[in-house]
Amino acid sequence: MFKTVCIANRGEVAVRIIRTCRDMGIKTVLPYAEPDAGSLAVALADTAVCIGPAALNASYLNADAILSVALACEAEAVHPGYGFLSENADFARQVADQGLVFIGPPAEVITQMGDKIAARQRMRAAGVPVIPGSDGPTASLEEVLAVAEEGGYPLLLKAAAGGGGRGMRLVEAAEGLEEAFLAAQRESEAAFGDGRLYAEKYLTGAKHIEVQIACDQAGHCIHLGERDCSLQHRHQKVLEETPCQRLSAGLREAICQAAVQAAQAVGYVGVGTVEFLVTAEGDWYFMEMNTRLQVEHPITEWVTGIDLVRTQLRLAEGLALEWAQEDIRLQGHAIECRINAQDPMTGFRPSVGRVESLHLPEGPFVRVDSALLPGEEVSPFYDSLLAKVTVWGESRQIAIRRMRRALSEIIIEGLDTTTDLHFMILHHRDVIRGAYTSQFLDDHLKELVDLL
Amino acid sequence: MFKTVCIANRGEVAVRIIRTCRDMGIKTVLPYAEPDAGSLAVALADTAVCIGPAALNASYLNADAILSVALACEAEAVHPGYGFLSENADFARQVADQGLVFIGPPAEVITQMGDKIAARQRMRAAGVPVIPGSDGPTASLEEVLAVAEEGGYPLLLKAAAGGGGRGMRLVEAAEGLEEAFLAAQRESEAAFGDGRLYAEKYLTGAKHIEVQIACDQAGHCIHLGERDCSLQHRHQKVLEETPCQRLSAGLREAICQAAVQAAQAVGYVGVGTVEFLVTAEGDWYFMEMNTRLQVEHPITEWVTGIDLVRTQLRLAEGLALEWAQEDIRLQGHAIECRINAQDPMTGFRPSVGRVESLHLPEGPFVRVDSALLPGEEVSPFYDSLLAKVTVWGESRQIAIRRMRRALSEIIIEGLDTTTDLHFMILHHRDVIRGAYTSQFLDDHLKELVDLL
Repeated sequence: MFKTVCIANRGEVAVRIIRTCRDMGIKTVLPYAEPDAGSLAVALADTAVCIGPAALNASYLNADAILSVALACEAEAVHPGYGFLSENADFARQVADQGLVFIGPPAEVITQMGDKIAARQRMRAAGVPVIPGSDGPTASLEEVLAVAEEGGYPLLLKAAAGGGGRGMRLVEAAEGLEEAFLAAQRESEAAFGDGRLYAEKYLTGAKHIEVQIACDQAGHCIHLGERDCSLQHRHQKVLEETPCQRLSAGLREAICQAAVQAAQAVGYVGVGTVEFLVTAEGDWYFMEMNTRLQVEHPITEWVTGIDLVRTQLRLAEGLALEWAQEDIRLQGHAIECRINAQDPMTGFRPSVGRVESLHLPEGPFVRVDSALLPGEEVSPFYDSLLAKVTVWGESRQIAIRRMRRALSEIIIEGLDTTTDLHFMILHHRDVIRGAYTSQFLDDHLKELVDLL
Repeated sequence: MFKTVCIANRGEVAVRIIRTCRDMGIKTVLPYAEPDAGSLAVALADTAVCIGPAALNASYLNADAILSVALACEAEAVHPGYGFLSENADFARQVADQGLVFIGPPAEVITQMGDKIAARQRMRAAGVPVIPGSDGPTASLEEVLAVAEEGGYPLLLKAAAGGGGRGMRLVEAAEGLEEAFLAAQRESEAAFGDGRLYAEKYLTGAKHIEVQIACDQAGHCIHLGERDCSLQHRHQKVLEETPCQRLSAGLREAICQAAVQAAQAVGYVGVGTVEFLVTAEGDWYFMEMNTRLQVEHPITEWVTGIDLVRTQLRLAEGLALEWAQEDIRLQGHAIECRINAQDPMTGFRPSVGRVESLHLPEGPFVRVDSALLPGEEVSPFYDSLLAKVTVWGESRQIAIRRMRRALSEIIIEGLDTTTDLHFMILHHRDVIRGAYTSQFLDDHLKELVDLL
């Protein structure tokens, strides 16, 4: 097993990885940015080296500086966490070029899954249903019209080369298509130097269901059940649970099998997540694959008893999966709430400042993952995740009640947080019934916030 | 189910019970003593009423005051926690006399199991092995000589009416017996007005193994596996684990069955623990029964997935057990470390003062039960338990490493604690091999403390 692992990340996920490394007797090296000098991650790492100021390009996105530290400290592998360089194929290649192991899938898989159109084509070829839409990128209005005639409206136009919402247009009906096409094409051309677009049916009222998978180098691949991540605010996940309350056994099995099939089709190695949209009618489609650890992985750890970071390290080391599919028993129900330094009353505006008083939940079947220290200074430089609270219960009802209890124990003074919003979410009828879709929060946010 | 439960306790266990009550939607009433006004238990209880000053007889042992509060606040049941009034049969009767439910076994069972000689006789009659010794109390040296001839030395003389070590003598060999007998008789007569004694073989090098049982009013009784509680300092448990590393499957099954048999023989109802001594030769003997929740119950909750306080509440309500024996699956390994405000360097002298800085462990498969708040004033009035840290692992080795990691995350400034001692214990060869007995800590304390 690796003796030393370099962690190319910060905050909660850096601490999460350090914990498992310590559990396994692996030393950790942490290149960090100046504002993090007093952080828990720096305190817990065996070696921590300051690589630069807060600016991301100078520190957490500075691959050269990170790799210099990794090499100087004799790390044998690099764990990228989530965010930052975790889905950057060039970084994965750079790590390998230095003779180190990248803890994640092969760089080609990252590339392939990072290109949304290529991923669609690959999945369709592998027999995994994709959202109805274009076969590939096109510069022709006629091709898009044909897609619209087949799949209907609303339709989403996306930049083939794009991301971040640029070159994207939602088309509600046929009469708006041409105008939207031309606008998206112009915007895409300006932003990426590539005016090609593709079109997808825009699915409303669907659930965001993702499947955790794990594959070894010998090609064995298993799934560890699904997570319902539909509770989102502007595509940011807020609360996740497993299992999904509204999947029939047959549908669950089909989607989980498709996730394994998808992973095998691209030669996946390591731990990853395949995201699907599932409509109220029970139709389901491949959305994308996340080739890294997910923020919400603890709920899968609760119901499986499996440490996913340990699994990542073992698979990266070339070891075989410890389980066959039939060894995996999913037990009970788990929920995660992301406690963010954000004010839901003002459109989730980030809140910064000093944590004046701090008490996080404890007790039976409650887990906390955070990097908060008493007196922590929450800076404006990084994302606003303060702590993840996860609970387990033998039933969903018990888990919901336990989460409400856990939330009620949280004291974080000096900052606005999403704690109370979670409490309200977990009292809403649609959530209690499990009948929410990814539109729920956008539809009900005002009503929930008014109760705060 | 009960709507309101009164908690006749404080600190960690009061918080533990409040958490499950909240999980179940049950309101809590907490009578408390003056020094606890700013405690977490008081903050979390739905209703908290100050009943008097720190002196135990004025507060936590003041049955009348506690019951007045319970009645005034319309509680339907009283949970005594552990310690204080939890094994006081008179209190259990008083609770029942007021028309409230005592969350524990019937008062007669508490009485019977509280009388060590009666319990021995009862167990022997039920076919459960007891430590070789007297049949009953005696005032005759001849009877004790006969016991010694049959069972050999060392022999322990105990006051029939006694407790707390008074009227107790350890006899190493035959020549010391008469003198010890007369001394113990005099001491017992003086202390309890009753000079009768009984003799038991003194077992050295044995493990302290206890079995968690749960019984409903219909007489169904199951066990939830054993706990190895051999790591003790002067009969105070320090670290506990489940399962016991050194029990064969056959021995485990026999002891667990005996615990169920013991509970059924006395008409037990509720959650309880049967303690055994297990020698290196594999002989095992009933020691005593604890008719309450144990401090170390979280490790059983980890490996079973069962909330034992919830089970207590349901059984007290008259509900049937939710599981048959074959439904109970014990999975993985769990360890608990008791973090006490004590200085192991000076014979575990209690440490009092203000907690200046506080950080307790978090992350995967780690649980913390505490009642600590930032800035907590640890008073000299109560016991020195600050926090219980428990971990789970799929194997014992993983659990041990995880506990070392969890301990290494603890920051409690301003007080001496047992944290570092636990760290040393978990690096000792005998503990790693699981080969320790209840003498381990007394034998090795100096060696461990020298490493601190």
